[in-house]
Amino acid sequence: MTTTTQQITLAARPAGLPDDSTWSLETVELPELADGQFLVEVDHISLDPAMRGWLNDVRSYVPPVQIGEVMRAGATGTVVASRHREFAVGDHVTGTFGVTEYAVSDGAGVTHIDLDLAPAPTWLGALGMPGLTAYFGLMDIGELKDGDTVVISAAAGAVGSVAGQIAKARGCRVIGIAGGPEKTDWLRQIGFDEAIDYKSENVLKRLREVAPKGIDVYFDNVGGDILDAALANLRRGARIVICGAISQYNEETLPPGPSRYMSLLVFRARMQGFLVFDFLDRYPEGLEAIGEMIRSGRLVARETVASGGVAAFGEALLKLFRGENTGKLVLKVR
Amino acid sequence: MTTTTQQITLAARPAGLPDDSTWSLETVELPELADGQFLVEVDHISLDPAMRGWLNDVRSYVPPVQIGEVMRAGATGTVVASRHREFAVGDHVTGTFGVTEYAVSDGAGVTHIDLDLAPAPTWLGALGMPGLTAYFGLMDIGELKDGDTVVISAAAGAVGSVAGQIAKARGCRVIGIAGGPEKTDWLRQIGFDEAIDYKSENVLKRLREVAPKGIDVYFDNVGGDILDAALANLRRGARIVICGAISQYNEETLPPGPSRYMSLLVFRARMQGFLVFDFLDRYPEGLEAIGEMIRSGRLVARETVASGGVAAFGEALLKLFRGENTGKLVLKVR
Repeated sequence: MTTTTQQITLAARPAGLPDDSTWSLETVELPELADGQFLVEVDHISLDPAMRGWLNDVRSYVPPVQIGEVMRAGATGTVVASRHREFAVGDHVTGTFGVTEYAVSDGAGVTHIDLDLAPAPTWLGALGMPGLTAYFGLMDIGELKDGDTVVISAAAGAVGSVAGQIAKARGCRVIGIAGGPEKTDWLRQIGFDEAIDYKSENVLKRLREVAPKGIDVYFDNVGGDILDAALANLRRGARIVICGAISQYNEETLPPGPSRYMSLLVFRARMQGFLVFDFLDRYPEGLEAIGEMIRSGRLVARETVASGGVAAFGEALLKLFRGENTGKLVLKVR
Repeated sequence: MTTTTQQITLAARPAGLPDDSTWSLETVELPELADGQFLVEVDHISLDPAMRGWLNDVRSYVPPVQIGEVMRAGATGTVVASRHREFAVGDHVTGTFGVTEYAVSDGAGVTHIDLDLAPAPTWLGALGMPGLTAYFGLMDIGELKDGDTVVISAAAGAVGSVAGQIAKARGCRVIGIAGGPEKTDWLRQIGFDEAIDYKSENVLKRLREVAPKGIDVYFDNVGGDILDAALANLRRGARIVICGAISQYNEETLPPGPSRYMSLLVFRARMQGFLVFDFLDRYPEGLEAIGEMIRSGRLVARETVASGGVAAFGEALLKLFRGENTGKLVLKVR
């Protein structure tokens, strides 16, 4: 018995924003399961800012996706056939299955998920890589301390919204930066002390007002002018967590860096990058902490679910770069 | 008995490079010594890149020098009159006496120096703030480890030349970046493994050649393109020590920051600023370490001594920004 699946492969490397010519929708027959393999029916696919970087043919922390290769993506699904002893038919799982309706897996990097704790999309958001990124970024790279003033950019996004709620739960004063009143209203609802709308407010000036003693931890997901505004408002000993730079990922030339980086000297501050994968052996700790916050109602996990199946992947990815999502953006497969 | 002294005061805040209109040469009578004061006859005045920042009327780690105020400067000298119990006539001292021939001091921030260990100019260089800056920057901010590949910019300068020799003594591979063959030759003489001439070589490409496995510690004194070249050649877990940015101090508008700062994420690296003053209580440790290297011949302390007395201060300072000094630049007062 063979399985037919639709998949999205990389057709051409984009310059700037990906468009229709970037992707190819293919229908393929999956091979029969070998011993030690299982078949996953994918239900939700993760859309991540980092995907843009994987399309460039440059040396980075993971190899680029190759032309003709299925687009790399995290996903959730259900095991529908198995010749693997640890994964049985009916099991709910998450893994890097790619932009596909069905995937054959040998179990590498695949974990079970508990749909009683949270629905599948949350396992791609607060209980997935974004949540773990928020947790280790804040706790380990940001060295979060009680009472810190914490500023988070892209605060209504998958990582930012979890980071803000973790900081809040640890007794910090939390300021979120996001685009538009809908997002800033939501940030206030979920407990952020202040929310700055970068589309209508002067971020540098507003930060000075809402954090008059300066920022202890700045969790940066965007780069660009907002990073500079934070640099101008540091407190002595500040930690800047470099998690992403979504404002820059689609630039065709290297944009100017943070002009105010010499604030690091004036404020004896540091700026440090990280990747969640480096904390692999501590994922259980992170999931336990976030899971406990969800169970106790101290963390609101929100997802924006795009529809249209794998064929809609290209359009769904653009929503991310247009900032159309609140919380984690996922694509529903069927 | 009063003392007459020549001094340099700040006449006007410069835009860009300081010039003649920046400074005023004044002759003043110093007040008679009060109880607890002493009079210092200054012999050498320190010229520091940081001086440029003190001329701007902006919030920073020290207050700006005010118009009409004696220009702030570290200096060495001899006590020639005293009503202070810890400083006797004939004592050799160093302190922030300013650009002046004579200074009245109450002893705050003044320490004795040992001219048997090294001549006075060295107490403004390797045994002064520059040496301590090199020591704490490398050891504490750079977290120097045996076998690290260490890159130092402005490597033939007061801080860089000491930093390189400390790293070398700790068993590191040390690469210096400096301007011109005279400086790069000197760096090789004092033990640097490689020296790159940024005036005639492509620093980014040369770093890739001489540090093929990447940089563990980059000690930055210059900023600008050289910082970007280092960012492009990091090793995983790299530490960038932000000590200065001499290439940018005379810019009238904020220059673009390091475009390649997202290398911090790819390489899980950090960039951290510091000020030597934060290590005040550990100066004895730093001086002991550097002094021991001088005594045992493992550290070559070099100074460029400008002449002309305090009247030549303005011209001497420009030598620094033109890169005309090798090692520490000091002004001989008489």
